[in-house]
Amino acid sequence: MAPEQEATSVTDAYEELESRVERLTNITAGAGVLRWDQEVMMPEGGTPARAKQLSTLSSISHEELTDPEMGNLLDELEAADLDEAQSAVVREIRRKYDRATSVPTELVEEISETTANAHPVWTEAKEEDDFETFAPTLETLIEQKREYAEHIDPDADPYAVLFAEYEPYLDLETAERVLERLRDELVPLIEAIGESDVELGGAFDGTFDPETQEELSRDVLDTVGYDWDRGRLDTAPHPFSTGTQFDARVTTRFDEEDLLGSITSTVHEFGHANYTLGLPDEGYGTPLGESRDLTVHESQSRLWENHVGRSEAFWECFLPTAAERFPALDDVSAREAYEAANQVYDDNLIRTEADELTYHMHIIVRFEIERDLISGDLDVEDVPEVWNDKYEEYLGVRPETDAEGCLQDIHWSHGSFGYFPTYSLGSVLAAQLYAAAEDEVGDVDAQVREGAFDELNGWLRENIHRHGATYTTPDLVEKATGEGYTADYFIDYATEKYGRLYDLDEY
Amino acid sequence: MAPEQEATSVTDAYEELESRVERLTNITAGAGVLRWDQEVMMPEGGTPARAKQLSTLSSISHEELTDPEMGNLLDELEAADLDEAQSAVVREIRRKYDRATSVPTELVEEISETTANAHPVWTEAKEEDDFETFAPTLETLIEQKREYAEHIDPDADPYAVLFAEYEPYLDLETAERVLERLRDELVPLIEAIGESDVELGGAFDGTFDPETQEELSRDVLDTVGYDWDRGRLDTAPHPFSTGTQFDARVTTRFDEEDLLGSITSTVHEFGHANYTLGLPDEGYGTPLGESRDLTVHESQSRLWENHVGRSEAFWECFLPTAAERFPALDDVSAREAYEAANQVYDDNLIRTEADELTYHMHIIVRFEIERDLISGDLDVEDVPEVWNDKYEEYLGVRPETDAEGCLQDIHWSHGSFGYFPTYSLGSVLAAQLYAAAEDEVGDVDAQVREGAFDELNGWLRENIHRHGATYTTPDLVEKATGEGYTADYFIDYATEKYGRLYDLDEY
Repeated sequence: MAPEQEATSVTDAYEELESRVERLTNITAGAGVLRWDQEVMMPEGGTPARAKQLSTLSSISHEELTDPEMGNLLDELEAADLDEAQSAVVREIRRKYDRATSVPTELVEEISETTANAHPVWTEAKEEDDFETFAPTLETLIEQKREYAEHIDPDADPYAVLFAEYEPYLDLETAERVLERLRDELVPLIEAIGESDVELGGAFDGTFDPETQEELSRDVLDTVGYDWDRGRLDTAPHPFSTGTQFDARVTTRFDEEDLLGSITSTVHEFGHANYTLGLPDEGYGTPLGESRDLTVHESQSRLWENHVGRSEAFWECFLPTAAERFPALDDVSAREAYEAANQVYDDNLIRTEADELTYHMHIIVRFEIERDLISGDLDVEDVPEVWNDKYEEYLGVRPETDAEGCLQDIHWSHGSFGYFPTYSLGSVLAAQLYAAAEDEVGDVDAQVREGAFDELNGWLRENIHRHGATYTTPDLVEKATGEGYTADYFIDYATEKYGRLYDLDEY
Repeated sequence: MAPEQEATSVTDAYEELESRVERLTNITAGAGVLRWDQEVMMPEGGTPARAKQLSTLSSISHEELTDPEMGNLLDELEAADLDEAQSAVVREIRRKYDRATSVPTELVEEISETTANAHPVWTEAKEEDDFETFAPTLETLIEQKREYAEHIDPDADPYAVLFAEYEPYLDLETAERVLERLRDELVPLIEAIGESDVELGGAFDGTFDPETQEELSRDVLDTVGYDWDRGRLDTAPHPFSTGTQFDARVTTRFDEEDLLGSITSTVHEFGHANYTLGLPDEGYGTPLGESRDLTVHESQSRLWENHVGRSEAFWECFLPTAAERFPALDDVSAREAYEAANQVYDDNLIRTEADELTYHMHIIVRFEIERDLISGDLDVEDVPEVWNDKYEEYLGVRPETDAEGCLQDIHWSHGSFGYFPTYSLGSVLAAQLYAAAEDEVGDVDAQVREGAFDELNGWLRENIHRHGATYTTPDLVEKATGEGYTADYFIDYATEKYGRLYDLDEY
């Protein structure tokens, strides 16, 4: 072909790819609304029909992604001269295409069936505190997931393949190195806190009317600058955020005895939604308008939850609003609120109720166990004991039941192995990004104290959100911070903050 | 083939058809949830992405319906020996398949583009009270719809083809005969009412807090037996009902000065949702679990709205509850409430605010005009004058503006021609079904007075709902009532009820 003809053909091929990918986006986004509806709005009777609707959309999406013509277009475009944005789109779709085409449909359906059945089995096992009931299902899921990984890359560590489903661009070695470092640095810190005489007090002890809590959650979202024209707040038993740059919704939960929980949960989910809302409108329909993977997403939620929402500056800004809603807080000082928001509970067994610091121990325990389950170094029957041993070692506390131990979280019953580490990897990235933002926009604390979040959010928009999935995670981090992904900032942040809060000489 | 092989092949073909049709149902039902969300929950910013999502689902659904393999399966099954239910499924899918395959995709897309652009044009024309602005768009829509009809059946009256989109089994001659009869019988009745000295009073005059109205709407739904495990109530500017037998939702609206409006709107939408909820669970995914077309659907909403909700018995049952919510109603008697609920407003120009009786004049005017527009007997430019003349003739009142006249309703801008008549056809059927139910379950009024709706609803479940689309509309009516579709019952009902209410000697 003459160069001109070739260019036309490449342009056509790219347009065809774009149009197919936009269809996929529309199906996925539509399914996202159905899932949001299921969690937040749907009457219980709707379950069987909704399951069928979601299953059909998932099949269609799989069929469209794995259409051989998609493969031809990718082949053609990979051989062509594309600009940076086009190359990024091709790179992201290629990854999804290769994964989707390499696993036989039968295995996907088997896994889907096992997980559908696993949910009630896990629920019962947890209720009855009986790991034995869940063990055979877990065994099957591990075997199927190993097989799944082998189809994708027979030469790779299967756990690394599964991990890449959630975080494709930070390799497992990096993840392991970071998690080991967190363990090695945080275990002694948590021990020291346990030995400290400091009590951070119960500024938020008491009961708080859930309806007023909801109003306060709206105040929180007003304060941090949530765009209500493109979002909404609802309640859900397990808070989450979902949507697109045009409509990114937040959910939270209200517990009469846990006002702080609803505030931190709202700020956390705001972080996710705010990332989604910062994706470029014009990128909708391709990876250029999609978020990066779980590590980056979690960095956004953790940055807002921890670096903003648990800062003393935030409480100086927000406490008066909270006290307007709940006059019982009139006598609480910003310092006391800050301290209460950062109490470390070293006797807590439940991940979802954990503080900022011990949280990572929950992650590390499950990470170490699931990695060994997939590799075959650990047998399913030994999980409860190993789980309890690790809690004793890392947190100094031993679960007395499996319900409070290895059965506490739903993820394995979903067939999710390799998901957990991204929670900690995201926290680590949050600290790195916050430090880089501080370098550039000046005294963020002073701005937060004034309720001025524009500069911080502007930095995030400019350096993270607007790029969508144009860059891989390591490139994105490098561009945003000038250096590679590192746990240094998180360790500094954690040791300095908690060293001061708990008056620890050695920190 | 040997008979046994043939049977296997037919079974396989039927199963394949079923599975394809269930996929279609899942896509359509999913799109229904997206539309509900758009009207009820979605933040405004979500509009552009939602439009794309719905457009993709609509394309996929069209592609799957018109897949040539669908045609092959239908051919094979039509030649086979099927049972009643299977034949019904094949009949219904054949009709949809033939319609979808006979219209060129380009024309479908053109119409879709015209209607998308028509909406803002109509909105502006209505706001500016300027029919001229809307006229060229209306002209284009009429031409495109004529062309559309010609593709489906070049030998048929194009308006009849369009009408069949909404009501495929009652032919246009039947519809015309019924509408003419309504006009001939109701015009003198409305005139007589206009001359009557009776004033039915303003039992519901006043202002009513919208939040309390919402509680009262929930009371209404409790009273008539809405299944909250499979439904929910929300507000929407234009109330509607949507869903499946597993999840059929109701919306209503609240106007401070119109308590009665929210109650009748809630009961009306309940009638729709209650029909959907009565469809058999096991039929989900095929026409056996889908409702019949608009006439039957509207018969269910009108039966509950008018024959139940506007009856004296209902007000004897419900008024105490209403008075609990609104103590201002303490002094109102059930008779007064009944009278207020049945006031005829012969000077009202707006369909959506019309009473039970004059409502049909609004329908008939638009029906006569749109029929003549499609046939070419009426030019677009003459619509406003003909509209106003007909209002004067049928209702004795002449609109002073087009905004209050021919521009009042959105339907034409959607490209919906042939939809309007089903509103009246449904009311007519409601009266026929209610009479048949009374014959079988005894004194329905006495039951309603006691708040006992089980027998009436049981009759509807047994005779209408559970059949889904197994029978055509005429067959369904014949089976349920023992006779063909007729306006006799509606005319009797209307003349008797309003003759008494307005003390008319001649009725």
